[in-house]
Amino acid sequence: MIRLLPDWLRDYRREWLAGDLSAGVLVTLLLVPQGLAYALLAGLPPQFGLYASLAPLLIYAVLGQGRAQSVGPMAVTSLLVAASLSRLAEPGSGDYLALAVGLAVLSGLILLALGFARLGFMADFLSQPVLAAFTSASALIILLSQLSALAGVRGGASLPALATGLWQGLPKANGLALAFGAATLAFLTLARRFGQPLLQVLGLSAARAVLWVRCAPTLAVAVSMLLVSGWGLTGRLPLVGEVPAGLPGLRWPALEAGQWADLLLPAFFIGLINYVQSLSVAQMLAARRGEQIDPDRELLALGACNIGSGLCGGFPITGGLTRSVVNADAGAQSQLSSLITAFGMALAMLFAAGALATLPLSVLAATIISAVAGMVRLDALRLAWRSDKADAAAWLLTFLLVLLLGVDSGIVAGMAVSLAALLWRGSRPHIAELGRVPGTQHFRNRLRHAVEGLPGVLTLRVDESLYFANARQVRLALIGKAAGMPSCRQLVLVMSAVNRIDTTALLMLEELDRTLAERGIVLHLAEVKGPVMDVMERAGLGRRFAGRTHLSLQQAWQRLTPSPDYHI
Amino acid sequence: MIRLLPDWLRDYRREWLAGDLSAGVLVTLLLVPQGLAYALLAGLPPQFGLYASLAPLLIYAVLGQGRAQSVGPMAVTSLLVAASLSRLAEPGSGDYLALAVGLAVLSGLILLALGFARLGFMADFLSQPVLAAFTSASALIILLSQLSALAGVRGGASLPALATGLWQGLPKANGLALAFGAATLAFLTLARRFGQPLLQVLGLSAARAVLWVRCAPTLAVAVSMLLVSGWGLTGRLPLVGEVPAGLPGLRWPALEAGQWADLLLPAFFIGLINYVQSLSVAQMLAARRGEQIDPDRELLALGACNIGSGLCGGFPITGGLTRSVVNADAGAQSQLSSLITAFGMALAMLFAAGALATLPLSVLAATIISAVAGMVRLDALRLAWRSDKADAAAWLLTFLLVLLLGVDSGIVAGMAVSLAALLWRGSRPHIAELGRVPGTQHFRNRLRHAVEGLPGVLTLRVDESLYFANARQVRLALIGKAAGMPSCRQLVLVMSAVNRIDTTALLMLEELDRTLAERGIVLHLAEVKGPVMDVMERAGLGRRFAGRTHLSLQQAWQRLTPSPDYHI
Repeated sequence: MIRLLPDWLRDYRREWLAGDLSAGVLVTLLLVPQGLAYALLAGLPPQFGLYASLAPLLIYAVLGQGRAQSVGPMAVTSLLVAASLSRLAEPGSGDYLALAVGLAVLSGLILLALGFARLGFMADFLSQPVLAAFTSASALIILLSQLSALAGVRGGASLPALATGLWQGLPKANGLALAFGAATLAFLTLARRFGQPLLQVLGLSAARAVLWVRCAPTLAVAVSMLLVSGWGLTGRLPLVGEVPAGLPGLRWPALEAGQWADLLLPAFFIGLINYVQSLSVAQMLAARRGEQIDPDRELLALGACNIGSGLCGGFPITGGLTRSVVNADAGAQSQLSSLITAFGMALAMLFAAGALATLPLSVLAATIISAVAGMVRLDALRLAWRSDKADAAAWLLTFLLVLLLGVDSGIVAGMAVSLAALLWRGSRPHIAELGRVPGTQHFRNRLRHAVEGLPGVLTLRVDESLYFANARQVRLALIGKAAGMPSCRQLVLVMSAVNRIDTTALLMLEELDRTLAERGIVLHLAEVKGPVMDVMERAGLGRRFAGRTHLSLQQAWQRLTPSPDYHI
Repeated sequence: MIRLLPDWLRDYRREWLAGDLSAGVLVTLLLVPQGLAYALLAGLPPQFGLYASLAPLLIYAVLGQGRAQSVGPMAVTSLLVAASLSRLAEPGSGDYLALAVGLAVLSGLILLALGFARLGFMADFLSQPVLAAFTSASALIILLSQLSALAGVRGGASLPALATGLWQGLPKANGLALAFGAATLAFLTLARRFGQPLLQVLGLSAARAVLWVRCAPTLAVAVSMLLVSGWGLTGRLPLVGEVPAGLPGLRWPALEAGQWADLLLPAFFIGLINYVQSLSVAQMLAARRGEQIDPDRELLALGACNIGSGLCGGFPITGGLTRSVVNADAGAQSQLSSLITAFGMALAMLFAAGALATLPLSVLAATIISAVAGMVRLDALRLAWRSDKADAAAWLLTFLLVLLLGVDSGIVAGMAVSLAALLWRGSRPHIAELGRVPGTQHFRNRLRHAVEGLPGVLTLRVDESLYFANARQVRLALIGKAAGMPSCRQLVLVMSAVNRIDTTALLMLEELDRTLAERGIVLHLAEVKGPVMDVMERAGLGRRFAGRTHLSLQQAWQRLTPSPDYHI
């Protein structure tokens, strides 16, 4: 399943080099400030963001399938880390740092386990509306928490905590920090709006211009550092401060058994969400090139990346949308670009760490605000409302619970709503009464078409597979419909929509047959699908319904049509 | 929904009186020893079983729909009570007793809430194999725990705890208790085997003989009490002891908020299992008479019964199979029989309590062993194995976990397996490639029938509704099948088996259309059901697929058949 040499290295073409090189450099410039910012968002010292940006890039380059995928710290993941850990330890404490590292290792191990067990399909149980609501609400919380950071105020993980924190802290806000933050925000907004045409005027191609605009945050960070040290503002506003220089060593997280147990559930959900996120980015970029991504293999790659991040002292990571798109658009043709980015991050850790000391926190906050502002979107709710009210309810519930209770409770509740709606619908299937279109062999719903019936015969079609969750409902509905037709002597159950049947439903069919027989009604089956018939044979129901199982409904009707000399 | 006078009272016929009277008396004789025994099984003083047998009978007579239903303490329910509470308090302690009473009230309130919210369908998520495995394993645990009780040894709630307890306690067993227990067991086994023919020889009718054999446990209890007091054995073996005489008063359980919270989950599961049990008994007996039971109304009745049991100082109760069948077979035509049983129980509490002091515990244990021995059955596993391997896995897992971890963890795990298997199957639907039976308008699976194709056209039918859990899999499978036919230019998706579609699947269809278009393949839809088409229209997909949506597959093929002057 995993080859010794990654695909991209075996097929490497010389003409890819230029694109990989420039993409690798560009992503490095983007990743340094993002790594610092997302570490702070997760409640961790900034260097954790750098630690989390080295090993995953190297590991994904070997194990990953996405050619332009760029893995590393992500805003929503950091928020999830903060939300999960702030319940277990004081943010910034030694325990908190150890738990963050443990969370990365454990969620990586869980992804590996799911990958080996080929359980990648679990990610499918996160529906699009739930995921969209989760992302929008998370972005909103990140916005608020970074407004707090911009003002130098400590926030919480849910909307009420953040709002009260901001309200109480605002009067004590640091004016200089606010000024730096506001200026950065204004610059980034302007750059996004007018940067591309401006750079094109200066002679760049449209595509290149778009890419360099993406590096505006890096420019803002660099300029703010120069201003702080040039104007001698150290000590007058919150700065990133001393970042230890040097590469991270490998270390197993120092946690006790009880702490690992506490991390189990958060690690599972963070791993699942990171996987869904990373897989959808990889599949989107692969589809552009006409390539396929094996979901189970991607699970292994992302699991290994997270373990690597944790062992190097980093926190949970994923394949991010923005950076991967920048990587692809900057010309990345292979994971060589990730190796170059990793090299750049190592250089930053070794030599740039000291310079980061003068970087204002409010500037980092402004770069995050600018990055997530576009993620708060209501169009998914609009689509869900039009197509499926249960999906709209799942969106609303997830959105509200993420805001009010926190990201982790919200996503669990959203998944539960999706599953419950699915089960509830399956549990009350549509049952149509059929009749024959006169003069044809076609049978249609009596309520929608002008059809004819047979005397004493009730023909019902169940539009759902039969299983435990709907067996009782179906039995009651069929008996009820039979009771509603006092002349009924034969009931033909059309099973054309029954794709599967389980033990509970088999027992139900047997009991239904017995109950109907007691009332003088003969139960017939028609259009039973092959696999369903096989199961019925094995369970002994084939014998029971021998002579009453009809290949087609037409044949059943021919059998049940009274002959001219027919008497009751 | 609930009428002032119960149905049975409004329609009461004089000729029912004899049957109701004899059934009421017979069930009283059965219920007194069972109540005591099941209270002990739940880890409670024996009189709790009498308290739990009064109010529920009165309340069910007013609110219940089952004519011959007999509610009260049940073996499996008592085991669940013991398993849930032994984690929260020391069995027999004041806290434990208060929690048992609280459990009855809370599970009653939960059933009431489910009934008012019309959520009775939740009971359907317990599949038959899970329920059967749960019952068998519970019966096995009850058997072992009563073997311990027979030997006068204290057991636990799971198999390992019971086995070690029995092993360590056996050398210290009380010989006299063992002798009484073994004699009772022998008597009950012989009575079951030879009682009926013997009584028929003595002149009783076959039906009457069967009923009186059911009262053998009561006879054993009475004889053992006489022997103990007659031979002066008090103090030489464990006895029921002093049972306070008198009727229970009404009291709200004395629990703190934290204790109520601890009870929430056990109360939910015990309520659900009691409901499933009671409903199936009521429906089975109602079907005999050609009557219907409204599940939501029955939920309210059982909820009120449990609240009543708790307020009178009793523990959770349900509608039991054995006693209800005895009641019906003894001639009960209406709930008047339950009122007579309630009167009998009140008499027992007032006047027989003192006499129970000399009843050996090992005799009660023997009556329980005799009652549950027949409940350990493997036939459900055999059926599940033949019809559905996932059901067989659910049976095995539930059975093993109930034995090893305890009844409550086992039932939760079993339900989870059922649901996971359901979701997993729905997540990888069967996709068939169709062709036309030559010379007809019928389309069949290419793998099963000799059919013809159309050049450049791939016709695929998805045999499942489309929703979040299978959207990604379906997309990948369809793209894969298209890639497997390099000449493919048109892909016809037959949606005759798609009963529902959700937002995630709508987005998937859009993305699938885009991906296929990039590869030069046109996506067509055929046989889209009315409700699915409505949703697609609302979501704007109707416009996208305009001209590519075909009423029938036949029409799609006509459109796609190359005309004689057709060139590629």
